[in-house]
Amino acid sequence: MTIMKTIQERRSIRRHDSRDIPADSLQSIFKAVQCSQSWANSQCWELIVIRDQNVKKALQETIPSGNPSYQCIVTAPIVLALCGHLEKAGYYGGGPVTKFGDWFMFDLGIVTENICLTAHDLGLGTVVVGLFDHAKAAKVLSVPENYELAVLLPLGYPTDTPAPTPRRKIEDFLHEDRF
Amino acid sequence: MTIMKTIQERRSIRRHDSRDIPADSLQSIFKAVQCSQSWANSQCWELIVIRDQNVKKALQETIPSGNPSYQCIVTAPIVLALCGHLEKAGYYGGGPVTKFGDWFMFDLGIVTENICLTAHDLGLGTVVVGLFDHAKAAKVLSVPENYELAVLLPLGYPTDTPAPTPRRKIEDFLHEDRF
Repeated sequence: MTIMKTIQERRSIRRHDSRDIPADSLQSIFKAVQCSQSWANSQCWELIVIRDQNVKKALQETIPSGNPSYQCIVTAPIVLALCGHLEKAGYYGGGPVTKFGDWFMFDLGIVTENICLTAHDLGLGTVVVGLFDHAKAAKVLSVPENYELAVLLPLGYPTDTPAPTPRRKIEDFLHEDRF
Repeated sequence: MTIMKTIQERRSIRRHDSRDIPADSLQSIFKAVQCSQSWANSQCWELIVIRDQNVKKALQETIPSGNPSYQCIVTAPIVLALCGHLEKAGYYGGGPVTKFGDWFMFDLGIVTENICLTAHDLGLGTVVVGLFDHAKAAKVLSVPENYELAVLLPLGYPTDTPAPTPRRKIEDFLHEDRF
């Protein structure tokens, strides 16, 4: 599948069937993480592959029940948890070098997209879950100090194809030479 | 080109030839931005396409001369500037809903990767420039209040293919069920 088609067709998937994910598909996703670009090649990512149903249930308790991804945290065959090592991205010589401080969220955005595009290309669905109690969820996953858990990514074979979400027109976000 | 090949082969490109970028290639890049996923579909991105040499020169003055991307800001046929509308991503009901506050950097990371992968697929090179004086550069580009300029992306046909950068081993960032 071409890049453009993949970007355009990829949807957030919250319903999966019970099929497990083949090892070689998972390897392709890990490889996409490994090959992600990052701030000065600092590679701040850490990836947790969650299959244990008790861990999924404990994570679900950190998600507001109104979150549309509440159910799929426990029904997806695998949940990926993406963490960042702090004070790497956007840092030189021990301190932040831009007004935005730590760039781990920017770099994890890049990694997240690589995971989602690769998964879609393999016929797998993903949804990026960012709305939960991060402190509680980090405790569930034993995330150490100086690392942050950013997003959870339920992963599995989709049972439906949601309609595209509405988008801003290109001319509404495009500027020439100045904003 | 497949997604996996594109992710693995894409490099940071800082040397371009003088060829201009075809309009349909630019349209594909704009479409990739438009179709990017985002927090609750909030689409906080704004994209500035810079061709004016005076604007490029003014931007160059905001970059430390030791930055390896210092030269290509003025030699690339086009520089893209990616901005975020604040208080959209990670926000509900006027306030931030997670400990990470504004998620615009995460969402712009996603958009950045979609731009870079699409460009590579079209034979175009990109480099993500994040190290510059953001306040000064935002002034050059007349970025309004409540928006932030995050990265500059010089864009053009590469004259070389840099070697791959070293990567962490998969087993060094992969965890099972817990960190």
